[in-house]
Amino acid sequence: MSDLILAADLGGTNLRMAAVDSVGHPHNITKRPVPKGVSPAGLIDLVEEMSSLCCDGLHGEVRALGFTAPSPIQLDFDGVLTKLPNLGSVTGMNFKRDLEDLFKLPVFMENDATAAAIGENWIGASRDVQNSVCVTLGTGIGGGIIINGEPLRGPDGIGGEIGHITVEPNGRPCKCGSIGCIEEYASATAITRMAVEFGMNVANAGEVYEAWQTGDEKAESVFASMGRYLGITLAGLANALNPEMLVICGGVTAGWDAFSHHVTAEIEKRAYPAAAKRAVVARCGLGDNAGIIGAARSAFLRGSI
Amino acid sequence: MSDLILAADLGGTNLRMAAVDSVGHPHNITKRPVPKGVSPAGLIDLVEEMSSLCCDGLHGEVRALGFTAPSPIQLDFDGVLTKLPNLGSVTGMNFKRDLEDLFKLPVFMENDATAAAIGENWIGASRDVQNSVCVTLGTGIGGGIIINGEPLRGPDGIGGEIGHITVEPNGRPCKCGSIGCIEEYASATAITRMAVEFGMNVANAGEVYEAWQTGDEKAESVFASMGRYLGITLAGLANALNPEMLVICGGVTAGWDAFSHHVTAEIEKRAYPAAAKRAVVARCGLGDNAGIIGAARSAFLRGSI
Repeated sequence: MSDLILAADLGGTNLRMAAVDSVGHPHNITKRPVPKGVSPAGLIDLVEEMSSLCCDGLHGEVRALGFTAPSPIQLDFDGVLTKLPNLGSVTGMNFKRDLEDLFKLPVFMENDATAAAIGENWIGASRDVQNSVCVTLGTGIGGGIIINGEPLRGPDGIGGEIGHITVEPNGRPCKCGSIGCIEEYASATAITRMAVEFGMNVANAGEVYEAWQTGDEKAESVFASMGRYLGITLAGLANALNPEMLVICGGVTAGWDAFSHHVTAEIEKRAYPAAAKRAVVARCGLGDNAGIIGAARSAFLRGSI
Repeated sequence: MSDLILAADLGGTNLRMAAVDSVGHPHNITKRPVPKGVSPAGLIDLVEEMSSLCCDGLHGEVRALGFTAPSPIQLDFDGVLTKLPNLGSVTGMNFKRDLEDLFKLPVFMENDATAAAIGENWIGASRDVQNSVCVTLGTGIGGGIIINGEPLRGPDGIGGEIGHITVEPNGRPCKCGSIGCIEEYASATAITRMAVEFGMNVANAGEVYEAWQTGDEKAESVFASMGRYLGITLAGLANALNPEMLVICGGVTAGWDAFSHHVTAEIEKRAYPAAAKRAVVARCGLGDNAGIIGAARSAFLRGSI
């Protein structure tokens, strides 16, 4: 009977779950909206309900749970979620303890973007690579760093928080409290904002990309700017960490052909030639499943399963 | 009889050597200018001559050589120095092989700033710390990164090249070919240049600091700007790597009281609160000896001595 991890990726909008086997295949992928203002008990009930669906028809044995959350999570994380964007109603709950009580299984938690980096490094774009940086472009920007095959979490679980690296010293205020963070210049939110500033009538980054596909010059300027800024930040990380791969994940990768060459060009312009040559810019291999696959990998490794 | 490493720190101007014992004490520290246009054979002769002085009167046994050079050096470095600033006359020589032939001992090479980070992590400012970033402010800016107690070299030995992280996207051209590198804003060279731009009549960073000590407002502006830029870059690394310590080394630390509070303030302003709180900004503990002490530590560890 094969070993399975019940893996979940908790976001501010949706909860995604699957039963992941030992070669990284996610079975019965299930996605549900997280109700606004959900109570801690309601969130645990939702996990329980979805877990039945994830395990339906499988003959393996669930050995542990692997969970991600959009929060800094250190290796010895005690399970109390203190700062979850868009999930204020569950602030202070001990998610890990409550789930361990319910399932009578070990629960391993991981930051969502770090989990994506672990997943990509296991069976995705950066498979077989020792050193990589994974940047997740969505509503905001997250990141995960793998050094010598190990996720870099840091003592406070902040390791890999690429989204709030300054890219424009006197730039836009960011909701994190800093100024000129890359999140303000290369996230889906930033793409939409820049497009509106350029006079485009669009509601989201997808519409900016649709315009780009029709040859819209303003949309081209938006993606050129966004790609250039992302390249500046990644060039800095290429110099500092000399990774073999820079993996770009998240919803914004739907517009890959509009921006990726700008990223590469900027890295070639700014990083050491050997570092720029070494750091292959790659599109994520696992799409929306990177988080649950990485959460499962983390649980397999940390649980010695 | 105690084990010793013959350690050397090769710069563009000087060669510093010492015999370093197993607790990190450098004996018979010797410093000589590297003659302009020195030949490969001349450089080897200089090392041989200085090695006698370093070992004079010591009763230990030299077990290996540890050498630093201002060049990217990967773990499996073959010994050929290809790009040494101010040492063009020895380009292409196989420094490692020539020294092994001469001394009949293993030679371990390390990038100079990475060696400084290793030295500080061994018995200096970041002793007992698992994750640290060491930035060396001199004519240029170098850096070294320690993750989980191990130096981050990267496959091309570029790991830790902090000096060429962009801090001002449309900033000054840098001799590395990029634009707006932190080296152009926080090195000794940059301090002097900014002071001259502000109308000061100074020839070097030391004179800017002397003026600062007398209350000169222009000098204060120079150090405020330099400290702010350095803080921006270090805040980004604090977010990405979540280190316990940020060690500042190099000649510019002579002006510590003029700039360090600006660095700290900028990190507090820009990094995640937990990352900023965690990352103690510290002045180097080993001064000019960080490189030779780190080179020795590297040789002790890699040679299993």
